[in-house]
Amino acid sequence: MKKKIRLKRATRKPGMMPGTLTVDPTWPKPAIQILAYGPDQYLEKRIADIHELDGLIGKYQVLWVNVDGLGDASTIQYLGQLFKLHPLALEDVTSLRQRSKVDDYETNLYTAMKMLSMQDEKLFAEQVSFFLGPNFVLTFQEVEGDCLDPVRERIRKKGGMVCNMNADYLLYSLIDAIIDAYFPVLEAYDVRLEDLEEEILGKPDQATMNLLFSVKHDLTSLRRTLWPVREMAGALAHSESPLISPPTLVYLRDCQDHAVQLLELAESYRETGSSLMDFYLSSISNRMNEIMKVLTIIATIFIPLTFIAGVYGMNFENMPELHTRDGYFVVIGIMAFLGFGMFFWFIHKGWLTPKRKTHRRPQ
Amino acid sequence: MKKKIRLKRATRKPGMMPGTLTVDPTWPKPAIQILAYGPDQYLEKRIADIHELDGLIGKYQVLWVNVDGLGDASTIQYLGQLFKLHPLALEDVTSLRQRSKVDDYETNLYTAMKMLSMQDEKLFAEQVSFFLGPNFVLTFQEVEGDCLDPVRERIRKKGGMVCNMNADYLLYSLIDAIIDAYFPVLEAYDVRLEDLEEEILGKPDQATMNLLFSVKHDLTSLRRTLWPVREMAGALAHSESPLISPPTLVYLRDCQDHAVQLLELAESYRETGSSLMDFYLSSISNRMNEIMKVLTIIATIFIPLTFIAGVYGMNFENMPELHTRDGYFVVIGIMAFLGFGMFFWFIHKGWLTPKRKTHRRPQ
Amino acid sequence: MKKKIRLKRATRKPGMMPGTLTVDPTWPKPAIQILAYGPDQYLEKRIADIHELDGLIGKYQVLWVNVDGLGDASTIQYLGQLFKLHPLALEDVTSLRQRSKVDDYETNLYTAMKMLSMQDEKLFAEQVSFFLGPNFVLTFQEVEGDCLDPVRERIRKKGGMVCNMNADYLLYSLIDAIIDAYFPVLEAYDVRLEDLEEEILGKPDQATMNLLFSVKHDLTSLRRTLWPVREMAGALAHSESPLISPPTLVYLRDCQDHAVQLLELAESYRETGSSLMDFYLSSISNRMNEIMKVLTIIATIFIPLTFIAGVYGMNFENMPELHTRDGYFVVIGIMAFLGFGMFFWFIHKGWLTPKRKTHRRPQ
Amino acid sequence: MKKKIRLKRATRKPGMMPGTLTVDPTWPKPAIQILAYGPDQYLEKRIADIHELDGLIGKYQVLWVNVDGLGDASTIQYLGQLFKLHPLALEDVTSLRQRSKVDDYETNLYTAMKMLSMQDEKLFAEQVSFFLGPNFVLTFQEVEGDCLDPVRERIRKKGGMVCNMNADYLLYSLIDAIIDAYFPVLEAYDVRLEDLEEEILGKPDQATMNLLFSVKHDLTSLRRTLWPVREMAGALAHSESPLISPPTLVYLRDCQDHAVQLLELAESYRETGSSLMDFYLSSISNRMNEIMKVLTIIATIFIPLTFIAGVYGMNFENMPELHTRDGYFVVIGIMAFLGFGMFFWFIHKGWLTPKRKTHRRPQ
Amino acid sequence: MKKKIRLKRATRKPGMMPGTLTVDPTWPKPAIQILAYGPDQYLEKRIADIHELDGLIGKYQVLWVNVDGLGDASTIQYLGQLFKLHPLALEDVTSLRQRSKVDDYETNLYTAMKMLSMQDEKLFAEQVSFFLGPNFVLTFQEVEGDCLDPVRERIRKKGGMVCNMNADYLLYSLIDAIIDAYFPVLEAYDVRLEDLEEEILGKPDQATMNLLFSVKHDLTSLRRTLWPVREMAGALAHSESPLISPPTLVYLRDCQDHAVQLLELAESYRETGSSLMDFYLSSISNRMNEIMKVLTIIATIFIPLTFIAGVYGMNFENMPELHTRDGYFVVIGIMAFLGFGMFFWFIHKGWLTPKRKTHRRPQ
Repeated sequence: MKKKIRLKRATRKPGMMPGTLTVDPTWPKPAIQILAYGPDQYLEKRIADIHELDGLIGKYQVLWVNVDGLGDASTIQYLGQLFKLHPLALEDVTSLRQRSKVDDYETNLYTAMKMLSMQDEKLFAEQVSFFLGPNFVLTFQEVEGDCLDPVRERIRKKGGMVCNMNADYLLYSLIDAIIDAYFPVLEAYDVRLEDLEEEILGKPDQATMNLLFSVKHDLTSLRRTLWPVREMAGALAHSESPLISPPTLVYLRDCQDHAVQLLELAESYRETGSSLMDFYLSSISNRMNEIMKVLTIIATIFIPLTFIAGVYGMNFENMPELHTRDGYFVVIGIMAFLGFGMFFWFIHKGWLTPKRKTHRRPQ
Repeated sequence: MKKKIRLKRATRKPGMMPGTLTVDPTWPKPAIQILAYGPDQYLEKRIADIHELDGLIGKYQVLWVNVDGLGDASTIQYLGQLFKLHPLALEDVTSLRQRSKVDDYETNLYTAMKMLSMQDEKLFAEQVSFFLGPNFVLTFQEVEGDCLDPVRERIRKKGGMVCNMNADYLLYSLIDAIIDAYFPVLEAYDVRLEDLEEEILGKPDQATMNLLFSVKHDLTSLRRTLWPVREMAGALAHSESPLISPPTLVYLRDCQDHAVQLLELAESYRETGSSLMDFYLSSISNRMNEIMKVLTIIATIFIPLTFIAGVYGMNFENMPELHTRDGYFVVIGIMAFLGFGMFFWFIHKGWLTPKRKTHRRPQ
Repeated sequence: MKKKIRLKRATRKPGMMPGTLTVDPTWPKPAIQILAYGPDQYLEKRIADIHELDGLIGKYQVLWVNVDGLGDASTIQYLGQLFKLHPLALEDVTSLRQRSKVDDYETNLYTAMKMLSMQDEKLFAEQVSFFLGPNFVLTFQEVEGDCLDPVRERIRKKGGMVCNMNADYLLYSLIDAIIDAYFPVLEAYDVRLEDLEEEILGKPDQATMNLLFSVKHDLTSLRRTLWPVREMAGALAHSESPLISPPTLVYLRDCQDHAVQLLELAESYRETGSSLMDFYLSSISNRMNEIMKVLTIIATIFIPLTFIAGVYGMNFENMPELHTRDGYFVVIGIMAFLGFGMFFWFIHKGWLTPKRKTHRRPQ
Repeated sequence: MKKKIRLKRATRKPGMMPGTLTVDPTWPKPAIQILAYGPDQYLEKRIADIHELDGLIGKYQVLWVNVDGLGDASTIQYLGQLFKLHPLALEDVTSLRQRSKVDDYETNLYTAMKMLSMQDEKLFAEQVSFFLGPNFVLTFQEVEGDCLDPVRERIRKKGGMVCNMNADYLLYSLIDAIIDAYFPVLEAYDVRLEDLEEEILGKPDQATMNLLFSVKHDLTSLRRTLWPVREMAGALAHSESPLISPPTLVYLRDCQDHAVQLLELAESYRETGSSLMDFYLSSISNRMNEIMKVLTIIATIFIPLTFIAGVYGMNFENMPELHTRDGYFVVIGIMAFLGFGMFFWFIHKGWLTPKRKTHRRPQ
Repeated sequence: MKKKIRLKRATRKPGMMPGTLTVDPTWPKPAIQILAYGPDQYLEKRIADIHELDGLIGKYQVLWVNVDGLGDASTIQYLGQLFKLHPLALEDVTSLRQRSKVDDYETNLYTAMKMLSMQDEKLFAEQVSFFLGPNFVLTFQEVEGDCLDPVRERIRKKGGMVCNMNADYLLYSLIDAIIDAYFPVLEAYDVRLEDLEEEILGKPDQATMNLLFSVKHDLTSLRRTLWPVREMAGALAHSESPLISPPTLVYLRDCQDHAVQLLELAESYRETGSSLMDFYLSSISNRMNEIMKVLTIIATIFIPLTFIAGVYGMNFENMPELHTRDGYFVVIGIMAFLGFGMFFWFIHKGWLTPKRKTHRRPQ
């Protein structure tokens, strides 16, 4: 898949007329490919002039029109007229803030969802819009490059059921392919969490924590992305639209199962992330405790001894002890006694027990 | 939009008769504008004498009466009689504590919602009330200045569908404009959170935290404002009132979608805020740890050495070491040995490993 | 409203016969007032002998019997027989642990709720029980003094609709008056939270925290009180009992709206309280950090210098440096160099940057 | 009530045949008492030989068979055959892990619940099973001793309605008695929380915290016990079984109210516990802060002074200050100036303001 | 049960054709055993050639085909054709990420669930798939070894009802056996939590915390495993499929009860884990506090005294005190006074009160 870019969201002026397409001039211009097929039909081509499409509608059992790039409002408007799409649905195509959803406009079904990918260790989400009509599927993507090639390949090779089924099965195949592509993304986070766990059990530092925060943040937004995907898959799987046939519903239910699995995975990784965070913080706490113990032991032993030495360093003329023969040795003895006394007191308080080997580690 | 002021909430005496209008004398006096139109009709004027309204009702396909300012109970009462509004709905107009809601009074529909704006970096919420009747929309605002000018412009220019549709579509257009105006407000908080994140990754201090608390607080109250907006939009989109026609319902459903998006945005920013807070606190924790380490290393190395120096600073007469030729150098040697010994012990314990560059940062 | 006292809850022996009235002997004895009215009727008097009531039932359009004090089981029992109340409902009247609720006993409707007031900065909750019959309302309060005087006044002055409506509207008016009286209580907490915020931004201490805990605790119990009030108001507003007429239902729905507003206010203050708590704790954390920094800077600069001074305070005979001409000045120079070196190192580490003015404060 | 013992749970081998009774040999052997009554009938006796029961079924309006002790599988099996109980229900009787629940087996109704008591400050939960048939109630308890004596007393004295009603009213009376007995248990925790609060406001230590944890733990498990009790009471109160007559349903609804009250009490105590915990932790934090301040003030004032003293304690030959007449007094003066300077700096920083009296305490 | 291994999850290429079996080559090859029985029939054998199965279908009242190992796609595919299974169900058999669930494919019922066991103190979860047809049950396990032997034994011995009932009762027996086997797993965690509690009350260290984190993590994932098990059991117990007869539904409801109990146990252990964690952290906090107190007491007493000693260790020529007769003793006296003064001040502040014996411990 070629390198993708994050599109600037087009600024929508508040109070704009409903149904207005808000297109940013920096977006890629639309590139249209069609794939038309039936049990005995097959046509694949890139469309240069949009009017080439006019004659194709209804001629094939299934017509899949894929549009990469939303940078030209008139093209989208024209497609809307050609396929009789509702202006609000078209507005949603260019508004890149859509949650995954299904809108039933009777003559066609609008579905929006996010296509995820990892690029340079960063999460990349692209909005994909689907229109399902009686014998067509129309898809809009933000930029070129997608995870739908296996479906194209199956159509080309007449593999699987896709060539014998109607447009609804194509819609299912496309959504299934996009949902399947979520799994490797989630697994990438699983790997990162395992790396982080190892770091935290070893020598964690601020960088570890920064990374952990970033992973948790991504997982939270993944969960927010997946939640409506599950709803969308459920809405499709229980759709009462005549555009979706009962055999396809069984397959869509499988899609819904996968969406639920994804949501649980995201939830589970997020919990692992939180748990690692707690673990990290309690390690810091423990370590601080240990540092404090070292400081306290040293200071508590030597500060009183230094005081005694200071006393006998005073320059008073009349300090009888200074003139005794064994004064020095007695004082040294007292110091040694005090020092070891405190040392053993700390051992007694359990501040100096050797660290147990942490042979057991969280799994 | 001109500078707005926050109105004092009128104090309502407990046990007041239901339907009593509680109006604060400091509130602006009502200023009334009308906009009446139909496919071939158009009238726009400011109403100086409220009785000018009497003859206008029913003469136009749609009559929009907008009242800015709630500071005169008798005007509101008069409008209530003119448009046959329920006293409880009128009471709600002047009670500035309303949650967004829809009340169906059969002959008309009462809708309350909050209009948000940012003024001098502060969130400003103004209550707007709508009454929808068979051929009128009556709106009440706290003060002059609103985000509805694009709708007015469209009516004046006979742009869009608004001139060919009934009052229900006008209600939709107004609510849609107000909901659209929430997006820039939320985006302002997004920008602030990004600034805060940068500060926290750099040199956070108490001021950063104060600001973060204030942003979190605002987002929490935004969420509390948006929650009933979503309910209200849902109630309108699924309304069974004969005052709302099926084509308008499709548009209201789009409104509901936007309200859901807003709520998710607010939720997501709030989570980012919490996550930044945790990040800030764990940074503080980390830094405290580092400070403690510096203190402990210095104190632990030098306190024992100072003790040794103190011992040989004692003035006992009989201290044999003092009189040896190399005593001083031996003691200096022992001190150096001890000092470096502890230093290397700290290196061994990993207290002195250089900080890893935090080239990875949360996104 | 006169000073109220908190009643001891009567101890109920487990396994007591259902319907047993558990009355504590220290409770005030019942004092009964009646207010009977209709469009052309009016009677208000204090009842000394309970049998005065016998003849009054059914003679007036609405008969309101108010009982202040539950300290006499036989009076309550007698009223129960007179108005044909279910023994379980009577038991609930004297069990002061009731959640707000509505019980439909077909011939009458039992409603329990809490009446709140602030006395000497303390929250005071009193249980009020209502029985609604075809032409009577019977209310039980723990002690004298309530917030229902505005309703009494309206009846006396024949103001508002109350005199033309039936007993159900009286029930609504009473409940509405009690719910209205919740608002000033909640606002008192709002004021306290604002005071606390100021203290926390200024010089917070243990007393601030104690107060904050107490406010949070009160708000939590307020929320627990308000939750069932909302349910109760909802149950009344959607009641299918023939005792409540449809016009009154519209008013009860307004009550329900107020209950929802109250719950949201309580929730919002509680969140503000939690947020202040977090703010307080993170301030403490910050301050500890600053204290540690001061300690560390002073100790880290002077401990090594003191060690050097200690070395040259040793009394060895053979210490060549002591006898050089400039030894003292060289050592002083080295000390100054070391001291300032560490000082600038701390500046470099950012431990000594001046505090930014916290001109931005949470709102 | 005599001293109870906690029974060992019988180990159930995974994969055992459904309906197998798992009985631990250390459990007390069953002791059977019957209480049979009707408006004009009364029989109470201890059953030595289980076959005595055969003739009694159906002869009395209500037959209550109470079994204390589950230590003999054959007795339970025999009772199961006699009263035509489902094997799965019998299995539940001996499986001491049951949540409170109601199972409707058409010819009879199985209800399980926990009977709580406090023994030596410890929470004790015993499983009680009820079978309700057309004219019998069969109860199983783990050990002898229960809170049902008031019900027995009422039957013996023909007090209350119990003697005129059917078996369903007896079931209600028993469940009501058990639920009533929860209140004193919860109140015991209320008392403990108040004691703990006082300790925490005074001189909290590790023992306080241990106790607080133990109370919180108990309250959490109480809540877990009460949750299904509420469900069970609700299921009974809305049961459609012909075994429960409508008048009894009204009483069972009262039971459900009590269960809801209990759950709210437990919830409220649990929140108080959490709040005390937070309070305790923030006190610790505050106190640590104060300790650090004392340490820092002392160390910061005296460490630099000691350094100065150390400098003039050095033994260099050429130290001109030592030989001046007023050197000593000048140095002492400088020291005093420095010391007081730092002291006033700390006062200026607010580290030495006297503690405010915490006359306000959490309630 | 023999030692199990954790299987690598087969990587599923995104966009794969739906119904594709993804089988990892390292998985064990399928080993098939059959157990066919009826009231008068019995056959048990290992199947070497898969075609042996062809003739057996329909000949016995119940045919149980158990497949251990999923390492050969063609075998699974063949079984799918033989028993007329849906390709999506077969795909689920090999996708080891299934949540427990029930899918109704009309001619058969697909059930997936996890079989848990503890091996070397580690939690081991294996996916088991069940297909229920009119007279067969087909089970797929990841590896050999299961907890179903008691069921096999009962069939062999014609014990219990299993031999007189249809395939649905066999399905129940198998699921019941697997759910029963969850209890010992959960109890193992109960034991570990008790051990951990003892450690935390004694001498907790980093290793304790690591273990606690690992236990909490396991309990969280157990809960995540059990949640869908409960749903699955509920779906079976309320299934409307004709494949499950009403008497079996009663038994399945018992299964559902057990699943709910398991979930509550897991929840309760998880809460205990969290509570132990909090307890541990607050112990650390307490201990840190105590360490700080020791350090502060020692430093605060001796640092000023050392300063005084340092002053009289200065070598100024003109220090009058040095030459007085009792100077030394006066200074020593002052030091003692200061030292004890501070000591008693600390006692007064309560920093030196002896630790109360923590005879009360959390239960």
